[in-house]
Amino acid sequence: MTDDRIRARYLIETPVGLERAATSMAGEQSTGTFIALPGETPELHRRHAAHVESIELHETGVDASLSGSRGPGPVERGEVVLSFPLENVGTALPNLLATVAGNLFELQQLSGIRLIDLELPAEFGAAHPGSQFGVDGTREIAGVPTGPIVGTIVKPSVGLTPTQTGALAEELALAGLDFIKDDELMADSPHSPFEERLDAVLRGLDRAAEQTGRRPLYAVNVSGEIDDMRRRADLVASRGGNCIMVSVNAVGIAGLRDLRLHSSLPIHAHRNGWGALTRFPQLGYSYQVWQQLWRLAGADHLHVNGLRNKFWEPDDSVIASARAVLQPMNGGPAAMPVFSSAQSAEQAADTYAAIGTADLMYVCGGGIMAHPDGVAAGVASIRQAWEAALEGTDLDEYAATHPELDAALRTFRGALSS
Amino acid sequence: MTDDRIRARYLIETPVGLERAATSMAGEQSTGTFIALPGETPELHRRHAAHVESIELHETGVDASLSGSRGPGPVERGEVVLSFPLENVGTALPNLLATVAGNLFELQQLSGIRLIDLELPAEFGAAHPGSQFGVDGTREIAGVPTGPIVGTIVKPSVGLTPTQTGALAEELALAGLDFIKDDELMADSPHSPFEERLDAVLRGLDRAAEQTGRRPLYAVNVSGEIDDMRRRADLVASRGGNCIMVSVNAVGIAGLRDLRLHSSLPIHAHRNGWGALTRFPQLGYSYQVWQQLWRLAGADHLHVNGLRNKFWEPDDSVIASARAVLQPMNGGPAAMPVFSSAQSAEQAADTYAAIGTADLMYVCGGGIMAHPDGVAAGVASIRQAWEAALEGTDLDEYAATHPELDAALRTFRGALSS
Repeated sequence: MTDDRIRARYLIETPVGLERAATSMAGEQSTGTFIALPGETPELHRRHAAHVESIELHETGVDASLSGSRGPGPVERGEVVLSFPLENVGTALPNLLATVAGNLFELQQLSGIRLIDLELPAEFGAAHPGSQFGVDGTREIAGVPTGPIVGTIVKPSVGLTPTQTGALAEELALAGLDFIKDDELMADSPHSPFEERLDAVLRGLDRAAEQTGRRPLYAVNVSGEIDDMRRRADLVASRGGNCIMVSVNAVGIAGLRDLRLHSSLPIHAHRNGWGALTRFPQLGYSYQVWQQLWRLAGADHLHVNGLRNKFWEPDDSVIASARAVLQPMNGGPAAMPVFSSAQSAEQAADTYAAIGTADLMYVCGGGIMAHPDGVAAGVASIRQAWEAALEGTDLDEYAATHPELDAALRTFRGALSS
Repeated sequence: MTDDRIRARYLIETPVGLERAATSMAGEQSTGTFIALPGETPELHRRHAAHVESIELHETGVDASLSGSRGPGPVERGEVVLSFPLENVGTALPNLLATVAGNLFELQQLSGIRLIDLELPAEFGAAHPGSQFGVDGTREIAGVPTGPIVGTIVKPSVGLTPTQTGALAEELALAGLDFIKDDELMADSPHSPFEERLDAVLRGLDRAAEQTGRRPLYAVNVSGEIDDMRRRADLVASRGGNCIMVSVNAVGIAGLRDLRLHSSLPIHAHRNGWGALTRFPQLGYSYQVWQQLWRLAGADHLHVNGLRNKFWEPDDSVIASARAVLQPMNGGPAAMPVFSSAQSAEQAADTYAAIGTADLMYVCGGGIMAHPDGVAAGVASIRQAWEAALEGTDLDEYAATHPELDAALRTFRGALSS
C-alpha cells in the first residue's frame, strides 16, 4: 500500500444490503451522522470522507446473528473494506480504534460486524515503538538459539507465598526450563506482593544458576496501574530480571505502549479477556488485528492458545494466530507466539507439523508440573517430544526409548476429556 | 456485604451442568488448572479457592449460543455467583479484570458467559480515585443547577479546521448550549491538532461569553497515548478549559485512572467500542459492571445511548444503564448519564418519564444542528421539550405554542426510519 489511507476489512451482516450498510459505516465513522448537516461541504467530503473500497457478498438470506438490527431484509453477509484518510485520525492507537472500530459495533444497520484485517500507512510503524526484542532478541536473552523456548507457569495460580514461589522457581530452573512465567492471577496482592515475589524468585533463580550456569527467562507479572507498572519495570531491570508480563486487555493499549517506552525488557503479552472480544464469530475482532495493535504498542511475546487446548478455540484458529504473530509487520520484527493452555508433550509434533517452525514459546503448566516423575521429567518429556518433531520421528516410536516422554503421553493424552 | 471477598455474578450457558461449570470457573480463576497439581494443599485451598456462592437454573435444553463448548448436554442456562478472596487479587483494576473476567470467556465448559454484576469490598473504594465531580460537581462547573445539561457534539465529526471548530463553538455557545463536546473521531490529527483546536475553541467560547456572560462546558477529546493525555489535561487546565473527554475503551482502564489522578477537570467518558463487549447477550459484560469499573477509575459522565437511538440497543436497556450511572457506589457520588445518539426534542418527554430525573446530559448532534431554523432554534426546541416534560404537559400541546419545538418535531420524528 503506497497511499496515506487506513484500510479496514470487516465481516458484516445486514438487512439493508451490503452497499447501503457499508455507506452508513463510512458516514458514521467520518463526515456523516443520521441526518444531513449544514457543515458537510463537498470540499470537506472530498478530503475527509471514508471510502467504501470493496464489497464482497458471501451469502444472502441468513438468520440475523445479533438482535436490534432494522431493515427490509433479506440479511446479507459479506466482507467490506473501508478506507479512512490518515489526516482524519493521526497515529495514536486509541484514536485509530475509535475510528476503525468504535461505534460501528452498535449500528442498527448491522446484525453482525467483525473487524478482520487492518492495513496501516507507514506512519504507524514510525510513530510506535513496536516489539523491542521479537523472536531473535528473545532467543538471545533466553540463551536458546534454536528449538522451542520451553516454559512453564507458576502453579497453583494463586496461594503460594513469595518464599514458596521462589523455591518453586529454583526447582523449575534446576529442572532445565528456559522460561518461567507468573500466572495472570498473580500480580500484586496481599498474599504475594510484587516486590517480595520478584526478589524471592530472582534469588531462587540465582541459586539454581550456581549449579546450572544459566538463568531462565522469568516473566514477572507487572500488570497494574500505570505508575505501578513503570515502577515495577524499573525494579525488575535494576534487580537483574529479564522479562515482564502484562495482562494486556486488562491494562489497555495506551498502558502497554507507555510501559514499552519505559522498559528495556521483553514484554510477554498475556491475552486473558480476549475471548469476550472474539468468541462470537459475527462480532468483535479477529486475532490478526488484535495482535497487530499490541505489537505496535510493544509486545514481544503474544499468547495464541495451543492445539487441543482447554478452551473453546479450534486448532486451525490457533495456528492462524501463530502465523500472524510470526509475520514481520509495520517495520517491526517477527514476534514470539506463545503456545499455552493444557499443553504437554502430547501436542508438540502436531504443533510443529502445523506451523513449520520452532520459533515459539511452548508453555506447559500441568503438562510439566503434573508429570508423574516430577518436574525435571516433565521438562525432559517436552524436549523429547520436540526432538522427535524436529527430526521427523513418530512420537510413540520416540517414546519407546525415552521414558519421560512415554510417561507424559500416558498421563496427558486424553486428560482434558477425563 | 461485610467480608473481604469479591463477588461476581455471571449469566452462563453450559453443556456440563451449571454446578460442574461453576466449579470449573472457580478452579480456573483461583487454585486449579486442567489437572490436579502437587502444590494444591488443603490449606492453600481453604485460604485461596474461589467459591461457588449460588447457582440458579433459568432454562434447560437451549441451543448453544457459542461454538466450541464440549459436554454431554443438555445445555443449561442460568446465573452463578462466584466469590474470590481479596487477598488473591489486591485492588488494582487490571488484576480485578484478569480474575473476574480474564480466561473465563474461553472455557470450553461454557457456551455462554457474561459478567453481569460485581460486588466489591470497601477496599476498592479506598484504593481508587473515583468520580471527582459526578452530578453535583458537574452542575456547579456548568452553571446548571437544575434541569438537564443540554449539549451538542461538534459536527461534522471530522474535517473542520481548528479555526472552523472555534467559530462553530462560538455559534453554539451563543445559541445557549450548556455543553459542547468533540466527536470521538476528532482527537489529535494532522487536520485538527489538539492544541490548536483547544485554543481556537476556548477563544470562540470567550468571544461568546462577552455577550452571554457564561461559558458552556467544553469536553475536549484528549484521547491518545498516556503522556499525551497527561500533557493535554495540563494544557486544558492551564488555558482555562473546564472538561476533558476520553474514549475509555480505546484508552484502557489503567490509562483512564492515570489521567484521573493527573487531572482537576470532569472526565467525560465516551463509550465507543462498547458494542463489541456487550452486543451478543451471552458473552461479554453488562453495562452495570462496565460503568462501575470506569467510575472507580474516575469517570464523571458516562454515555448510555438514548431512547430511539440510531444504534441497536432497546430503550429498556438504555434506561437501565442510566439508572446504574445515577446510583452512588463504592463511596463515590452519582455520576452523570449522557444521553446521546440521534437525540432531539422528540425523545425528551419519554426520557424523563422513564428515568424520573433531569440529572443527566442530553446531547444532540443533528437534533440541534440540523434544526430547520438554525442552531439557536435547535437548542430552544430541546429546552422547550424538557420544560414540557418537567411540568407534565403533553409534547404536542406544548409545541402548539412553541414554534421551535414544533419545527423540531416535524423535522426529527421518524428521521431515522427515512
